[in-house]
Amino acid sequence: MKILIINSGSSSIKYQLMIMPTNEVICSGMIDRIGLETSNVTFKTASDSLEELLPIANHKVGLQKVADMLLDAEKGVIKSTSEIGAVGHRVVHGGSYFSDTTIITEEVKEKIKELSELAPLHNPAHLVGITVAEEIFSDAKQVAVFDTAFHQTIPVEAYKYAIPNYLLTENKVRVYGFHGTSHKYVSEKAIGYLENNSKIITIHLGNGCSMTAVKDGKSIDHTMGFSPANGLIMGTRAGDIDQSVIFYLTKNLSYTADEVNAILLKQSGMLGLTGYSDLRDIEAEAEKGNKDCQLALLMNAYRIRKYIGSYTAALNGLDAIIFTAGIGENSSYMRKLVCTDMDYFGIELDQEKNQVRSKSIREISKPNSKTKVLVIPTDEEYEIANQVYQLLQN
Amino acid sequence: MKILIINSGSSSIKYQLMIMPTNEVICSGMIDRIGLETSNVTFKTASDSLEELLPIANHKVGLQKVADMLLDAEKGVIKSTSEIGAVGHRVVHGGSYFSDTTIITEEVKEKIKELSELAPLHNPAHLVGITVAEEIFSDAKQVAVFDTAFHQTIPVEAYKYAIPNYLLTENKVRVYGFHGTSHKYVSEKAIGYLENNSKIITIHLGNGCSMTAVKDGKSIDHTMGFSPANGLIMGTRAGDIDQSVIFYLTKNLSYTADEVNAILLKQSGMLGLTGYSDLRDIEAEAEKGNKDCQLALLMNAYRIRKYIGSYTAALNGLDAIIFTAGIGENSSYMRKLVCTDMDYFGIELDQEKNQVRSKSIREISKPNSKTKVLVIPTDEEYEIANQVYQLLQN
Repeated sequence: MKILIINSGSSSIKYQLMIMPTNEVICSGMIDRIGLETSNVTFKTASDSLEELLPIANHKVGLQKVADMLLDAEKGVIKSTSEIGAVGHRVVHGGSYFSDTTIITEEVKEKIKELSELAPLHNPAHLVGITVAEEIFSDAKQVAVFDTAFHQTIPVEAYKYAIPNYLLTENKVRVYGFHGTSHKYVSEKAIGYLENNSKIITIHLGNGCSMTAVKDGKSIDHTMGFSPANGLIMGTRAGDIDQSVIFYLTKNLSYTADEVNAILLKQSGMLGLTGYSDLRDIEAEAEKGNKDCQLALLMNAYRIRKYIGSYTAALNGLDAIIFTAGIGENSSYMRKLVCTDMDYFGIELDQEKNQVRSKSIREISKPNSKTKVLVIPTDEEYEIANQVYQLLQN
Repeated sequence: MKILIINSGSSSIKYQLMIMPTNEVICSGMIDRIGLETSNVTFKTASDSLEELLPIANHKVGLQKVADMLLDAEKGVIKSTSEIGAVGHRVVHGGSYFSDTTIITEEVKEKIKELSELAPLHNPAHLVGITVAEEIFSDAKQVAVFDTAFHQTIPVEAYKYAIPNYLLTENKVRVYGFHGTSHKYVSEKAIGYLENNSKIITIHLGNGCSMTAVKDGKSIDHTMGFSPANGLIMGTRAGDIDQSVIFYLTKNLSYTADEVNAILLKQSGMLGLTGYSDLRDIEAEAEKGNKDCQLALLMNAYRIRKYIGSYTAALNGLDAIIFTAGIGENSSYMRKLVCTDMDYFGIELDQEKNQVRSKSIREISKPNSKTKVLVIPTDEEYEIANQVYQLLQN
């Protein structure tokens, strides 16, 4: 079955066409900077790699462009849209409604729309993607794979905030957790790889950063809560911060709430601390002696270490920690900082193995390290395709 | 030397008159509900215990009442205010200015006033207390003991938030830490008691609740940050919460920022979860089967356990955890919940010892517990008197 995976971000569309269950990738690509002057449009097959710059006004225009490329008489990979058996849509927020991958009905779309309130940057983009995909790929099953679904196993003592109960029951304020597709994928890979696998912590470090405590394959706690704003220090997001700072800035320093929110989401994190948001730049600067960059990396790693401790308590043990996503897979520097002074937790990094670059799963702890340290490349597209396929087989 | 300790809270004054260095308590008492219809005024000596109900309009009236009781011809303990050698004032917020106990000058008062912005409920009350004490006890040295001082050793990677640098340098937004007098007192007691004492975690559970990671006697991290609002779940305070909840409530549900702040400080925590703010009621209800109370206790303990893990990572080890303050000293129930499923951290509670009530330092872990669990009654008044005395000796 040919499955098209669509991941509509706030200003981008990533797509991938796969044949399942053989995991063959027919083509993939992305359109970024949607709504800006020019978008970068890529289309990649086993034999070809195309790139063009052109304006893409919105997600609707973007998805039509994806379809046009798939169908292109010369470079295309399908002859008719009816070849696509299913379209798998990544959806950021499934609230408490969806603990599993779900065939999209009018009712499901209503729920995704309702949840836009909780994910204003993402769910509206997903809805546009779904609606346009329904038109273009009208013979395909439309399926939603929710980022929050993996975290629906988090127990109530971990997902509930210590605020008045009506804010949970009436207003749905709780921990949801995000990056679920990635945490699910790498934790399953880790469980397949490890002998001792009941207590693992997955560390997803990309544009967004988050960690999950995984017990017997199930998410039991997660650093991101009600929104993808808190927890770890991210590229431009502050992560955890005393909420009283917000009241101080609005009350004493005359910021508006919107300004503070924008500061915390877009001007904070590594950018706010260093002036750079790309970790590669920050590492290069740190090595040149830039004190802000050195400190920001230390802060980042310190918070990750504290969450490793925190989740080890939640798990009452630790078999392995898993690094994944752009930074987790590629930054040996950050992995080293995180694994420094963690011998109480049985973490002993093999400095040489840590330097190796590879696209495969790899163990970078010393052979006798009580807690294993793994790098596992995440593959959200594969995970989505697999979940869609499994659902349609049942 | 007779030292009068004054602890002016937002609506209360606690006082104690001590002789140092012999630690003799001459009298103590408190005035609560200041500004309400009637205050409860107590005055206690070794031989006498008085209590009266009368209206106390403000802190100035309250402190004058304290002086009147001390000087009372019949029941009093001093003949003249000039017998008081020093007045030690507990001051909640010393910002980054004060890392030590300090003799109060005009400049110090200016700083305390300036810091009222960061501690609007407390610092103004302290200032009134200082000004009135200067008038009444004009021969005494006035000394400030800051709640934040003990935490001034927290390293920058732990006290800095991942927000734009100017918010730290210009606006002083950072982790300060609170309850420092208590954490200092019990950590020093613990260090005196323990053989292995370089890595300890102090858990102060009272009306406010906080934890400190103490390495070689120094605070290196703390659960309360910019204000005493975050970290653990408290009587009416939410503690940690995803900051995006605030923006959600103000933007989508039309709460004002002040309303949200009031909810998080006064209607949240154990009160918001159960309808009760006194832990004894909550424990009694939980034992009767009240599900909200059972869950709230679990949530509370779960968060403490996670911080034990977190600080064990910060310390890269753990020699002991210390329970103190009202709940920490008296609730065997809460201590048991916290110490459950923590054997990875070497914590093994002795259930029988945990039940013992005493005013002394006591070890409640099993003899072979790798990590010691201690209960140490806090004594902020003694700690303040001692610091004042030590300062004046030098």
